[in-house]
Amino acid sequence: MVEQGLYLDDLKVGDTFISEKYYLSTEKIKSYALEFDPQVFHCDENLAEDTFFKGLAASGWHTASITMKLLTESLPFAHGVIGAGGEINWPRPTRPTDVLYVKSIIKEIKPSKSKPNQALVVVESETLNQHNEVCQKLTAKLLSFKESED
Amino acid sequence: MVEQGLYLDDLKVGDTFISEKYYLSTEKIKSYALEFDPQVFHCDENLAEDTFFKGLAASGWHTASITMKLLTESLPFAHGVIGAGGEINWPRPTRPTDVLYVKSIIKEIKPSKSKPNQALVVVESETLNQHNEVCQKLTAKLLSFKESED
Repeated sequence: MVEQGLYLDDLKVGDTFISEKYYLSTEKIKSYALEFDPQVFHCDENLAEDTFFKGLAASGWHTASITMKLLTESLPFAHGVIGAGGEINWPRPTRPTDVLYVKSIIKEIKPSKSKPNQALVVVESETLNQHNEVCQKLTAKLLSFKESED
Repeated sequence: MVEQGLYLDDLKVGDTFISEKYYLSTEKIKSYALEFDPQVFHCDENLAEDTFFKGLAASGWHTASITMKLLTESLPFAHGVIGAGGEINWPRPTRPTDVLYVKSIIKEIKPSKSKPNQALVVVESETLNQHNEVCQKLTAKLLSFKESED
């Protein structure tokens, strides 16, 4: 079943998925930041010391991007991990040498009224570091499909 | 004032900021996807045709990352653009050759109860394509600081 991916009827509230681990290097933090979030606290260890973050920190959107990578590997939804949107919070930043992983739990399954073969699945995903501190909490609405009968 | 950045007392509800434009190429879509969201509809034009997206589409988190880049250039907050979190929705995907820009408006300013020198500023940012269609709507809580008096 996992090889083909999980269809709507395979999912239930409370199902939990744990990702592999991801090593966050200084180089990755800077490389993402230079392209998408070139602020000093994401780009320069020395200048970052005197900022709100008191040291180099990854962009929250970098943490979100890494989370998505870990979700594509750990949420085996048939037809892929397709999000309509969600709510995101960053209680603390991710840092150089952090080892991150994502724990996801299905909170709710809302069948579509207009499309009988699909549903929105509300998945809460926490991105944790090596100290099991929550660095990001994402509550996402993901598309799930019924297995076609043909 | 803009050169130094905007402090809390410079901001008011209704203030609007428009970003520069960003050209989204096929190469950028694939390059981001290979690193963070390696699903076929973000990586392969041909295979993408038979998916939910009916053609190559950027990852929503790529659109969010591009939005952050445009925000760092268009929201001149003193001490930088620092988000505590927010709500994000993708009404439609971004596509190869799209020209994106971001329109931001301050919706609410919430002074911090515990930290008298800072506030959370609620900013609604729409990411639009060249047809002025909304591809992403982000309602973010950003940190803003009072100018220090020393």
